[in-house]
Amino acid sequence: MSGDVKTRTDAGVSPVERLHALVGGDMAATDRLIHARMHSGVPLIPDLARHLIDSGGKRLRPLLTLAAARAGGYGGEGHVMLAAAVEFIHTATLLHDDVVDESSLRRGKVSANLMWGNKSSVLVGDFLFSRAFQLMVETGNLAVLDILSGAAAIIAEGEVMQLKSANNLGVTEEHYLSVVTAKTAALFAAAAEAGAVIATLSAPVVEGMRAYGMNLGIAFQLVDDALDYSGRQALMGKTVGDDFREAKMTLPIILAHARAHQADKPFWKRVIETGNQSEADLDRAITLVEETGAIQETMRRARAYADAAKAALGVLPQSEIRTALAEIADFCVERAY
Amino acid sequence: MSGDVKTRTDAGVSPVERLHALVGGDMAATDRLIHARMHSGVPLIPDLARHLIDSGGKRLRPLLTLAAARAGGYGGEGHVMLAAAVEFIHTATLLHDDVVDESSLRRGKVSANLMWGNKSSVLVGDFLFSRAFQLMVETGNLAVLDILSGAAAIIAEGEVMQLKSANNLGVTEEHYLSVVTAKTAALFAAAAEAGAVIATLSAPVVEGMRAYGMNLGIAFQLVDDALDYSGRQALMGKTVGDDFREAKMTLPIILAHARAHQADKPFWKRVIETGNQSEADLDRAITLVEETGAIQETMRRARAYADAAKAALGVLPQSEIRTALAEIADFCVERAY
Repeated sequence: MSGDVKTRTDAGVSPVERLHALVGGDMAATDRLIHARMHSGVPLIPDLARHLIDSGGKRLRPLLTLAAARAGGYGGEGHVMLAAAVEFIHTATLLHDDVVDESSLRRGKVSANLMWGNKSSVLVGDFLFSRAFQLMVETGNLAVLDILSGAAAIIAEGEVMQLKSANNLGVTEEHYLSVVTAKTAALFAAAAEAGAVIATLSAPVVEGMRAYGMNLGIAFQLVDDALDYSGRQALMGKTVGDDFREAKMTLPIILAHARAHQADKPFWKRVIETGNQSEADLDRAITLVEETGAIQETMRRARAYADAAKAALGVLPQSEIRTALAEIADFCVERAY
Repeated sequence: MSGDVKTRTDAGVSPVERLHALVGGDMAATDRLIHARMHSGVPLIPDLARHLIDSGGKRLRPLLTLAAARAGGYGGEGHVMLAAAVEFIHTATLLHDDVVDESSLRRGKVSANLMWGNKSSVLVGDFLFSRAFQLMVETGNLAVLDILSGAAAIIAEGEVMQLKSANNLGVTEEHYLSVVTAKTAALFAAAAEAGAVIATLSAPVVEGMRAYGMNLGIAFQLVDDALDYSGRQALMGKTVGDDFREAKMTLPIILAHARAHQADKPFWKRVIETGNQSEADLDRAITLVEETGAIQETMRRARAYADAAKAALGVLPQSEIRTALAEIADFCVERAY
């Protein structure tokens, strides 16, 4: 079979796209619901929301919700509402993160706050966040409301922790990991867990899906942080060096600084602690991060979390969805190469 | 009895304080819960939240929740959780409003975003908003979650509407009223309604409490908008002219512009439409707003909404709480004199 067109086509399809196909019409239904519920009589709201929602994001988080529910044989409609809610929470955090980070590019487009202003980004984020809760309420399931409201609080804590740890070379790997767990992995975990809960799966399966999402989310963020010091990032339509310019203490910097020759310490002190950077500093930082093996080590750890995510899938019966979820964990790391 | 000390003391107590006393330990319990739940392992969060939460706000919105439940004879604990949730939603909107409006004074203190930065204000607002939902989930009551998540979406819509209507002299009274209803009155209405719902009161009582909150909220905002052009505002520790400087289309401006002599129209065009203002313009605006009777008319309308709020209380059995709620409607208007 390996020579025929279909197989060749399959080989070119990412596991994310394969999982989209496996959840059948669920993702199309989720997209319809997202577009219906981001509507408002105030036109700026859907205009601004659409800027992010229709910008070609992979819908990875809602996909986890749909897949977890489907893998458990769920036949209801609640998982679609939850998936839309998860995407709204994610979009709201992106809008608020744009305000926060003054980042100029998001998914290759001019960020919303540059086009509409900080004010609108904050308020539209609030609107989408509220819509997310309205959708959860419609499921009538208090357990999923508990999971996702808890995740939302943890995400905000993670964002504040990240904010406070910028410009601080004393940030430890442990602190970095707690930031990543809170700001990114908590939503991946909650998305997968909520899908399993709405499908009334057993406690071990719920826990397994949560562990899958958590580990996948950490791997995802580690890779993201490595890519910010990589030329490949530019090919993906994102700027390189955003984290560097904001003096964010991501793992590549923590490791590069820890492993730095004595002669390079003043460089890190200047560009990170004082934030005093010139044009050429990013290139030097990329060189130092590469030379010290910090990128390689960051990717090695991402690989370990991806493997842990795959192992957690053992709670699910064998299925095409389970296979695709495992491949997504691999894909999440491999996209960096 | 009128000569004794107790009566004289009572006369000096505002109806808000009287209602605080009438709900007994409920407000103290609400305050304890607020302080317990704004805690986070990330110290900046309670530090920043405390700045607003402990700044001497009257807790009017949570008071409505407690009073509605108590007036209906509720004996559970859910109303305290809801009251804390309502105050968290209110505080989150203040934090996001500070970012939005670049206002320099809030309740007489330097606003949070000036002390901690816009970034922190957005994220701590998100945290409190999430905590609000966690508290609602704990009540186990989906109806109140529905009411308050709906209100939160409407508040965001109202804030966006307000943002988009600044600098526009074409804004109608009807549009202004829809902004006020959404950005302010929706939370007053939801706070009172949710208190009635958790107390499992009958549909007419729930509707009556909602109508009370809605009309009170509109009256409250009309008075606030009048005070922004009044010297009394300064005595309350707030800046005067915030709305003017932001070229907000509040009722005093809408009316003053509609009633303006032809000779004064260019003034309004310059200061509102172009936003080109000098120091002396606020004084002139205050004079014009006074001369055209715009403040008087704004207050007359506030009075009508306060009366509608009082009429809505007819659904409640006679009680000291009902009396205090009626007096709060009067007080809300009279604080301007």
